[in-house]
Formats: sequence, structure tokens, C-alpha cells
Amino acid sequence: MGNCCERAGNFFGPQNNTYIRVSLPAVCFVWQIAMVILFGVFIRYDEESDEKGWHEFKRSHNITSNIENDFYFRYPSFQDVHVMIFVGFGFLMTFLKRYSFGGVGFNFLIAAFGLQWALLMQGWFHSLDPVTGKITIGIESLINADFCCAGSLIAYGALLGKVSPVQLMIVTLFGVTLFAVEEYIILDLLHCRDAGGSMVIHTFGGYYGLAISWVLYRPNLNLSKRLNGSVYHSDLFAMIGALFLWMFWPSFNSAITNHGAGQHRTVINTYLSLAACVLTTFAISSMGQKKGKLDMVHIQNASLAAGVAMGTSAEFMITPYGSIIVGFCCGIISTFGYLYVTPFLEKRLKLQDTCGIHNLHAVPGMLGGFVGAIVAAAATEEVYGKEGLVETFGLSGKFENRSMSTQGAYQAAGTCVAIAFGLVGGVCVGFILRFPLWGDPMVFLPFDYLPEDEETIPPVLEYNNHMINKHQDTHESQFSLEES
Amino acid sequence: MGNCCERAGNFFGPQNNTYIRVSLPAVCFVWQIAMVILFGVFIRYDEESDEKGWHEFKRSHNITSNIENDFYFRYPSFQDVHVMIFVGFGFLMTFLKRYSFGGVGFNFLIAAFGLQWALLMQGWFHSLDPVTGKITIGIESLINADFCCAGSLIAYGALLGKVSPVQLMIVTLFGVTLFAVEEYIILDLLHCRDAGGSMVIHTFGGYYGLAISWVLYRPNLNLSKRLNGSVYHSDLFAMIGALFLWMFWPSFNSAITNHGAGQHRTVINTYLSLAACVLTTFAISSMGQKKGKLDMVHIQNASLAAGVAMGTSAEFMITPYGSIIVGFCCGIISTFGYLYVTPFLEKRLKLQDTCGIHNLHAVPGMLGGFVGAIVAAAATEEVYGKEGLVETFGLSGKFENRSMSTQGAYQAAGTCVAIAFGLVGGVCVGFILRFPLWGDPMVFLPFDYLPEDEETIPPVLEYNNHMINKHQDTHESQFSLEES
Amino acid sequence: MGNCCERAGNFFGPQNNTYIRVSLPAVCFVWQIAMVILFGVFIRYDEESDEKGWHEFKRSHNITSNIENDFYFRYPSFQDVHVMIFVGFGFLMTFLKRYSFGGVGFNFLIAAFGLQWALLMQGWFHSLDPVTGKITIGIESLINADFCCAGSLIAYGALLGKVSPVQLMIVTLFGVTLFAVEEYIILDLLHCRDAGGSMVIHTFGGYYGLAISWVLYRPNLNLSKRLNGSVYHSDLFAMIGALFLWMFWPSFNSAITNHGAGQHRTVINTYLSLAACVLTTFAISSMGQKKGKLDMVHIQNASLAAGVAMGTSAEFMITPYGSIIVGFCCGIISTFGYLYVTPFLEKRLKLQDTCGIHNLHAVPGMLGGFVGAIVAAAATEEVYGKEGLVETFGLSGKFENRSMSTQGAYQAAGTCVAIAFGLVGGVCVGFILRFPLWGDPMVFLPFDYLPEDEETIPPVLEYNNHMINKHQDTHESQFSLEES
Repeated sequence: MGNCCERAGNFFGPQNNTYIRVSLPAVCFVWQIAMVILFGVFIRYDEESDEKGWHEFKRSHNITSNIENDFYFRYPSFQDVHVMIFVGFGFLMTFLKRYSFGGVGFNFLIAAFGLQWALLMQGWFHSLDPVTGKITIGIESLINADFCCAGSLIAYGALLGKVSPVQLMIVTLFGVTLFAVEEYIILDLLHCRDAGGSMVIHTFGGYYGLAISWVLYRPNLNLSKRLNGSVYHSDLFAMIGALFLWMFWPSFNSAITNHGAGQHRTVINTYLSLAACVLTTFAISSMGQKKGKLDMVHIQNASLAAGVAMGTSAEFMITPYGSIIVGFCCGIISTFGYLYVTPFLEKRLKLQDTCGIHNLHAVPGMLGGFVGAIVAAAATEEVYGKEGLVETFGLSGKFENRSMSTQGAYQAAGTCVAIAFGLVGGVCVGFILRFPLWGDPMVFLPFDYLPEDEETIPPVLEYNNHMINKHQDTHESQFSLEES
Repeated sequence: MGNCCERAGNFFGPQNNTYIRVSLPAVCFVWQIAMVILFGVFIRYDEESDEKGWHEFKRSHNITSNIENDFYFRYPSFQDVHVMIFVGFGFLMTFLKRYSFGGVGFNFLIAAFGLQWALLMQGWFHSLDPVTGKITIGIESLINADFCCAGSLIAYGALLGKVSPVQLMIVTLFGVTLFAVEEYIILDLLHCRDAGGSMVIHTFGGYYGLAISWVLYRPNLNLSKRLNGSVYHSDLFAMIGALFLWMFWPSFNSAITNHGAGQHRTVINTYLSLAACVLTTFAISSMGQKKGKLDMVHIQNASLAAGVAMGTSAEFMITPYGSIIVGFCCGIISTFGYLYVTPFLEKRLKLQDTCGIHNLHAVPGMLGGFVGAIVAAAATEEVYGKEGLVETFGLSGKFENRSMSTQGAYQAAGTCVAIAFGLVGGVCVGFILRFPLWGDPMVFLPFDYLPEDEETIPPVLEYNNHMINKHQDTHESQFSLEES
Repeated sequence: MGNCCERAGNFFGPQNNTYIRVSLPAVCFVWQIAMVILFGVFIRYDEESDEKGWHEFKRSHNITSNIENDFYFRYPSFQDVHVMIFVGFGFLMTFLKRYSFGGVGFNFLIAAFGLQWALLMQGWFHSLDPVTGKITIGIESLINADFCCAGSLIAYGALLGKVSPVQLMIVTLFGVTLFAVEEYIILDLLHCRDAGGSMVIHTFGGYYGLAISWVLYRPNLNLSKRLNGSVYHSDLFAMIGALFLWMFWPSFNSAITNHGAGQHRTVINTYLSLAACVLTTFAISSMGQKKGKLDMVHIQNASLAAGVAMGTSAEFMITPYGSIIVGFCCGIISTFGYLYVTPFLEKRLKLQDTCGIHNLHAVPGMLGGFVGAIVAAAATEEVYGKEGLVETFGLSGKFENRSMSTQGAYQAAGTCVAIAFGLVGGVCVGFILRFPLWGDPMVFLPFDYLPEDEETIPPVLEYNNHMINKHQDTHESQFSLEES
């Protein structure tokens, strides 16, 4: 294996290797040093994590017990979200038999970079103190940073196996930036509610990834069809990711909802919706194939669609059966997407979507946004109570007099903003990725990691694309099996 | 692989395939629609998850902080239990080399269905409001629903690889129903304490599965012995499940115990007991085999037996060394079970028990019930304090004057009820599964999923059973490796 | 496989087999029985887990809500730490293609034993009631016991594949004992702060393991180089362990810090530091190899170094950018260690370090100790507030008048104590392991488990070592694939 990969390296010539050896470290170092400087200038602890601040906060708010620190309301959910980002998304992308390392490894890299950049971007837009010029962070900021990364990780799902790590870093840099702007417009200017991010995370992330993938389309990618598949074990690894996403989705949706009944209800709604979604996913998967086969791709992905679709409305009083109905529909829609829409998109729209994010994030997210709009418009003081209505929809200050139907309309508008940002932003970033600015475009042959026992399969060498005009090092060079 | 499976399909004829393609989706859709209707009629948020209700609850109970919502007492434990149900049980059943998908996939399906049905059944028995006719649910209901599913998942352990998904759905439907009735008798009528479910979950689930398996016995199943094994990787996947079960068992037992010292003590007891169990499991496993080998099956399963056995008594003042003694014994008993009892049951009692639930759930659960009875009978006011005794054993209202020895006797009686329900219920459900009512009994060849690199192994075709008289599609048809 | 292993057994003669069959069970039983007796004599519930005690505690401390039980401050972190110990450490050690069972299995055994012994040892040193002669335990004791095991599990990382399970039990027995003494000196006598254990856990554990490995050096171990490698799937399993360690490290460092802002800030610091570490790890890994390859060993290990290095200072006001700078440096240092120091140690110092604990624990831990010393020395009342300074550094009672620069000096001294205990203790234990006292030294051929499909590789039989002079049973005999 070591030999094989050395041979491949010599064949492709040394200049590429040298380039790869320089570009990724250069980007990592430059960006990480920038983070050190920007954090030094801007980021400080907030009053609940600062030693002095917390003592003053307790005195000023007349708090007697440390348990009322926001930390204890949010930390268990934060850790669940953290698991979803790194193990959930990471292992869900290990299903490709020759790209498992790339799936989980690059997911790790871009999430670790993205969350630092997200703390800054979200801080500038949401919590920059106009007097001191500082951003203060606490546990809720960490959750939001993880959420912000999720947008870019979703986009990675459409690009899996088709872009280099440096390109991924650029996708993430712009993804996080666009996310922060879009989030500011939707949550602050339009004053929508979107605790679980149906709109701001999933709709945006889904369309962002699809638009990039569309711009980067390569007609002869189907040559590598043979490599674009799973094996028994890689599907079991992906199942680990899928289950951790499924189990912890109630934490994802409830992580930043209101203390007390808000978090409690969000968990119940998401839990019920996800359970219903599993049954319809199994049903459609079994119906959709000859001989009633079940497809692991559907089980791993479509059963999660309900969590996406409940992102906005789970904190509302959608009722338990309302949640089940949403889950019921999402399982059907998402599985149909995997069966018919993804192949259609690839054939007709020339849009390759490796993980099927169209069916798992884009469409269910959009649906979730509109469901949220309807549920918000239908909210009454009778159901929520007067103070409950104000708290749930944040109708205080200058939004005090907004009627519920207006709120619903704004929620719907927010969904459209998310779609627009995803599509336009994605197309722009796609063209940026195609700039010859990056010198020798460090693109890898897609899906082309060679596990030891398949060395003999000849790599797909003939590769003719307007974007790539030199043979590149195979992907295997990105991850080695050998120790030190 | 795709070709191979198509060929196999043609060979077995199209009628079965069509049937499979219809029956599973039909069951899923009918039941999920029933859930929507029943949830619409019966299920509402409880006062701690309802927006209006929680504001009123805080006022009426003079609560100033949202942190006193039951959610913050229970949510971390709930998520741990959730992981145990889906990743713990699911991956523990991936050890069969040709049935890993079936293990984790059908576990997912039946748990997702079971928890919805459990919310209804447990609601009708425990929290139906006689005035409004509604069931109100909160975080504790979700934990109980997960617990209720565990009973059926345990039963699945005995049936792994031998029944179809539709049969599993029936096992779950009746399993959850029986569970709710049995739980009502044990916890409400007999007023036993059983927070971690030694009796209601493990004893019941274990005997329920064993009884079904006994009724479904097929003499020539040993033909497929060769397929009923593990490989190196599948045993590592099973180890993931085993470890998550082991680590989170303290959460399982403490999830619904009393706030404060109750949850605290339950965790300590379960933690200690499990640690002791690991050492005796390794000891017996190494003694029991020639050359001092350790068997991964024992490590994965018998080391969990202590958690099962502490289900009832962990919330009592069993003392730290008492917990260790229970763990000590359980490791020995359970490993002996795997070494000698399971083979004996299969040979003499014609009882096939794929995962050895007899040794992991049935016997340790029964033991745990009796240990709980003894510890309850030995409880004194000196140790618990007056109010502690009342709180721990719920001795208020009409049970105010029950003496501790009476409580002990009722606990023992509860264990017998669980055994009886498991055995009688299991035999009945077993015969229901054998009814020709299900038309062409959709049975799969056991343990017969073909991973890509073992295609050449001929499936065990000759199969002669009073229950099955046609060749069925192989199990592989249930899960496909191919994307869309 | 069964046959192969039987043949091997016969070849090596029956006496070894018999010995293995006796020694491990004997050690397990003797030690577990000792635990029962010692727990019976010494261990009791503390006032927050005792039924009667908690009621009295609430009355005497004027507490109205059960949520103020320490359990609710610590339990979520405890479960995360528990996952790190069993799944994190366990699966990180599955990377060896022929020793995955040994990695995760023996990790399980020694952690389960170690935590019981740790509760006793730490109890005697820290919480023995001089009046009653009892040790009282609560949730914080369980966390500390898990921490204490971590020291021995780190040492196992250097010895992986080279020692027998009985030897491992001895390493753990002495490791836990030394840990408790060293911890007593550092935390109680020197009054250092070390919540996440940079000094007491990582520095000690790292040098302890390295010293043992150095004493046990076997010149011809490189014969088995071929077996000391990973395969694609084993590296993915190791990635599960690495990610759970990485994600939950904020819980590890914050698990026993002060309630309120203390835990909150520790999480933020560790989270930021780990994220920065990932980027520099990827950068150096890519720079350090021809053709810009990324090495999975670096990704799995070096990206964790920041968590180790923040163990002492994360609870201080190190500032967010300070945390990022620490992470930045650790990624570089640790990856360089894997690239250049580990090979150097093996060649020149005759020190074999299977998992590279020198780069992941010893050096980053030592660094973390000194960083903590500097941050402590720089602490001012202006930043912490008067009461914050007292609380954070525990400067009450007889330490009331200690200046911050003195505290810094003591922190630095504590680090040196940890190094000294690790090195001296490790050398002593190494020589104990070489005593012929253990009769036939039950040593296994290193890295020599035979997975089914590699049976044909001949075991490395020729083996000439001053310590071992008989052929031993191969390691495979320790774990069997066969069910019952």
C-alpha cells in the first residue's frame, strides 16, 4: 500500500505533491493565526462565565444558587449537539467505501475551523457591545457556533468526495459568513423564531451545497460510479452517525429554546415526529423497490427528515399529534426524494448530490419553515396564555404589537430569505472555487481512496473536465494508514 | 452483489417479493395512521411542558426558577436511556456477521413504533384524566415509553434472525400492550417499587422472548449454524452497543427515581455493581474455556447483568458493598448461563435464544426482583429516616400503614407476576405468529444476509418446517447496499 | 480459526494454557473479594446520596429544592467522562489490526477494577472521617475514581499489545495507588489546583507508562513491525474513540471545577483550545509527510493534546485567546512528537510507545502544568474579584495568605512531583513486572491476534528476550470469535 501510493505519486509528478504539502498547511496556519488575533481583540467571557462577573450577576439579580447559571440549563443539550456535529455528521458521511476517512476527517477539520469563525461572525452581528467593542461568549454562543458549522457541513454532504480540503475550507469560510448575515436578517430584522434552524441552518445549508455542486458539475463523474458506493461495514459506520443524529435531534431543536416549558415541549415534539418518520421511511423504502428491499440509505437519512422539519415549530404549541403528522409526511417526502428526485436532479439538472442533502435538508427544511409559519399564524392567547405568547414569540419591545398572522407572514418570508441566500451564495462560492486563482486547483479524483485489499482496482485516470486539466494525486494520499 | 440478489429473487419467484413489498408498508401505514388519530384524541402536553400550564404551575406551586421544571431533573438521563435503546440494543445485535443490518435496522423500526404505542398504553393505565379523558405527557412519559420498548427489544434478542419485520411488529404491538397491563398490576395494584425495571422490563421481556422463541422452534435451524456467527469487525460493532449499555446503565436505573438523593444513590449503586460484574465475568469466561480464552460474547453481555439485577434495589439503601456483592454474583451466574445453560436449553428444551437473553435479562431480572424484595423487607426507619422511608417506598395514601415486610412480600409477588405475564403472553403471541392468518408467512432464512465478499457461500436452501413450506426470499433482500 | 488456534495451543504445550486459565481468574476473584470486604468496612453514602442524610442536609443548609443536590451539577459531566474512559480510551486503542479486542477489552477490565480501588485509595487520602473511620462517597467521588483510572489507562497506551492481562492488573493496582499518593501531595499538601488533571492524571500517567515500557524493552519487538499496524476499518473504529474523547474533553476538565462560572468557563476554554489544535494538527501532519499526506494517527491523537494541556488552566481566567494559543502550540508540538520524537525514542532510548502517549499525554500534560503555573501567578484581584480569587484557588483556611506568585511556584512544583512519581514509580513497577515471582511470565506475542482472513500469516515465533524464555500462547487465545 505504501509502495502503491508512492508509485502513484511519482507518476503524477512531484509538483502537485509539493503544492498539496504547502497549500493546506498554509491555509490552516494563516486562518488559525487570524483567529488568535481576532479573539484577542474581540472575544471575552460573558457575565455568567466570568469569575468576577458571575458573582456580581448573582448579587444584582438576587440569585442564591449557582444552579441558575445558564450553563446548567444548556450544557447537556450542548454536548448532544456537539456529538451530532462531529460523530453524527462525520460518521453519516463514512458510507462511501473508499472515502470514509475523508468523510469523517474533513468533517472534523471544517467544523473545528468553522466554529471559531462562527463565534466571531455571530458575535459581531448579535452580541457586539457598542461601548466596549467586545463580544461576550457563554454556553449559548458555543451552541450557536456549532449550529453555524452545521450549515457548512450540510453543504459538504453534496460535495463529498469531489472537492479538496482547501476548497472545503473556502466553502466553510463563506458558508459561515453568509450564515451569520442570513441569520441576522431572519432572526433580528424579520424577528422570526427558528430555534432548531429549519430555515437558517437546514434550508440555507441545503441550497448552499446544492448550488455549489451545480456550479462544480463534472459530466464524466459517472465514470467513477463504481467507486461511489458503500460496503457492508461502511454502511454500519454510517448507521452510527445516523442514530446519534436521530437520538440527539430533540437536543438540537431544544438547545436554545426558552428555559422551562419551552425546552421541555420542544423535546417532546421532536421525539414524536422522529418516531413517526421512521415508520413511513421504512414503508416507502420497502414499497419503492422490487422485492420489498429496504435501502440503508433511506434508513440512515430519510428517518432524520422529521427532525429537520420540526426545527422551527417544535418550540411552538404544535400539539403531539401535529408533530406526528409532520413526521409522517416527511418520511414519505424524503424517501421519495431519494428514490426519484436525486436521480432526476443528476440526469436532468446536472446536479450531483452525494449524500442527498436535497431530500434530507433542503426540502424538509423549507417545509419546516412553512409549517412554522402556519403554526405561528394559528397561535392564540387562549392556548399559550398572555405571557406565554409574548415569551414564545419574543413579542416585546418594538415587536410588542405584532399580530400572530403578521408573525406567520414574517416566518414565511424568512424561509424565502434562507432559500435565496443559499442559492445565490452557493452559486457565487461555486464560481469562486472555479477561479484559477487557487493556482493548480487541488482537486482529487472523486471517491478514490484505495483500501488495502482493493489496490488492484485501477484508478479512474482518464478525466477530462474544463476545470481540471492535469492529473492529480489520488485521494488516498490524503490519508495514510501507516503509523509515523 | 446487485446481480446476485436479483438472480436469487427470480429463483424464488415473484409472488413472495410482491407480498413483502406490500405487507410491511401496509402495516407501517395502518399503524402510523392509527397513531395520528389516537394521539389526536388522547395525548396532550402536561403542565410542565404546556406553555400556559407551566406559567400557572409556577404560580400555584410558588416556584421562582425554571430550573425546577422536571425536565432539568430528567433530561440528561433520558438522553442516556435513548442512546441505550437505539445504539445500545441496536449495536449489541450487530454481532451476527450476516445480520448486522437486520439487528440494528429492525431494532430501530420496532423501537420507533413501540414508543408511540407505549405512550398511549401507559397513558391509559397511569395518567388518563377521568374528567377530560386526556393523557398528559412530559419528559417522564418519554422515559417510560423508552423503557416499555425495551421489553420488546429484549424479546427481539431471542428471535434475532428468525422472524420477519412484520412478525416483529406484532411481537412489539402485543409486547407493549402486555407490558402496560403487567406494569399496572405490579406498580399500581401491588404497589411495588421498580424504577429500573428488573421485574417489569427485564424479567417480563426476557421470558416473553424465550416463550415466543420456544413456540417458533424449528428443528433444522442448526443447518444454518455456519451462518450464525460473528466476525472480527461485527464483534467490534457489538462492543460499541455493549459499552454504551454498560456506561449508561446508571442513567437507566436512576431515570425515574426520586429527585435528589434517590437519583444520586441509584447511580452510585448501579455503577459499583457493574464494575464488580466485569471482573467476575472476565474470570469465569477465562476459566470456562480451554486455554483460558476470553469470549467476546461474555464480555459483551454478561458484564451487563449487574445493571439488570440492580433495577429494583438500586434506589434502596442497599449499601455500596451490597451493590458490589450483587454484581459479583451476577457476573458469575450470567457467564455460567452462556457457557452451559444456553446450549442446554437449545438441546433439551428446544429453545433457541440467539442473544442469550435468558442469561442477560430473564435470570438476572428475576434475581433482581427477589433482591429488591429482601432489601425492601429489611428497610428500617433508622436507616431511611421517617420521611425517607415514606418517599422511597411511596408509602402514603392507602399504603400508609403497609409494613416493610409486607412490602417485601409484595415485591416478591410482583416478580412472579412478571414471569407469568412473560411466559403466558409469550406463548400466546408465539401461537399468533404461527397462525396462517398472515397469509404467506413472511419468514426469512435465518442469519442469511450475504455480504459482498461471501457471495459464493450457497444459501441454506433446504428447509423443512411445519410452519414454512415455501422457499422464501433470502434475508438480504431486506437491506440493500446500493444507493438510490 | 478454531482449528488453527487449537493447533497453536497444542504446539506450545498445555502447561501455559492451564496457567492462563488459572492466573487471570485467580487475580480477578481475589481482588474482587477484597473489594467487597474493604467496601463493607469503609465505604458509605455521603450526605447528598444518603436517604436520611439528604433530608437532614436540606434542613440544616436551608435548601428548598432537590435540584441543589450536587448530583444535578455534576451528573451530565460524569456520564461524559465515563464515555471517555470506556469508549474513548477503549476505541482509541482498537487501531491495531490484530489487537482491537485486546485494546477495548482489557481497557474495560482494568478500568472496572481500577475505579473500585480508586474509590478506596482516594477515600483514605481525602475523605476518611477520623471519627467514624468511614469514607463517604457521592457523584464527585465517582468522577474522581474515573479520573484515577485514566492514569493507568494512559500507561496502557504505551504497553498496548506487549503485556498480559495479569500484568495489566498489576500496572493498574500500583498505578492507582501511586496516583492517590501523588494526588494527595499535589492537591492537598502543595495545595495546587488541577481540576482537569494536566499534572496528576496526564503527566503522571504518561511518564508512568513510558518508564514501564522502557524497563520492559524487548530488542526484537521490531520483528513484529508487520503486525503493528492498522487497517482501514480499525482506523475508523479508533476514530470513534478519538472523537468521543475530543467532544467530551470540556466535560472532563469541568467535571469537578467550582459550581457556576467555574464549570462554565472551563468548558469554553477547553472547547476553544481543542478547536485550534485540530487546525495545527492537520497543518503539521500534511507538511510532515511527502506528498502532503494526512496521517490518521495524528488526526486521532494530536488533535486531543489541547485538552490535556488545558487540564490545569481551563478553570482559570486564561481568556479565550489564551486558550486558542495553547491549542495552537499543542497541535504543533504533539504532531512533531509523532513525526520525529517517537521514532527517536524507539531507536535511541529503546523506548517503545505503542500509542504515542509521550506526545499525547506526557509532554502536553507537563506543558499544561507549567501553563497553569504561569496563569495562576498572573492572577489578580482585578480580574477575578476578591471572592472569585479565593474560590478559584481555594485560598481559605491556612492558605489564606498565600500570594499568587507563591501559588504559581507551587503549581510548577506540583508538575515536577507528577513527573517524578511517574518516572520513579514506573521504573519500580516495571521491575516488579519482570520478577520471576509471577512464575511462568504470562506474556503474549505482541500485536498477534489473528483475524479470520489472515490466518495464513505465520506468527512471529522466534522470540529471544532476556525476560521471556519460553514460547507463549499467542494472543489470539485471549479472545475468541466463537459463540458459546
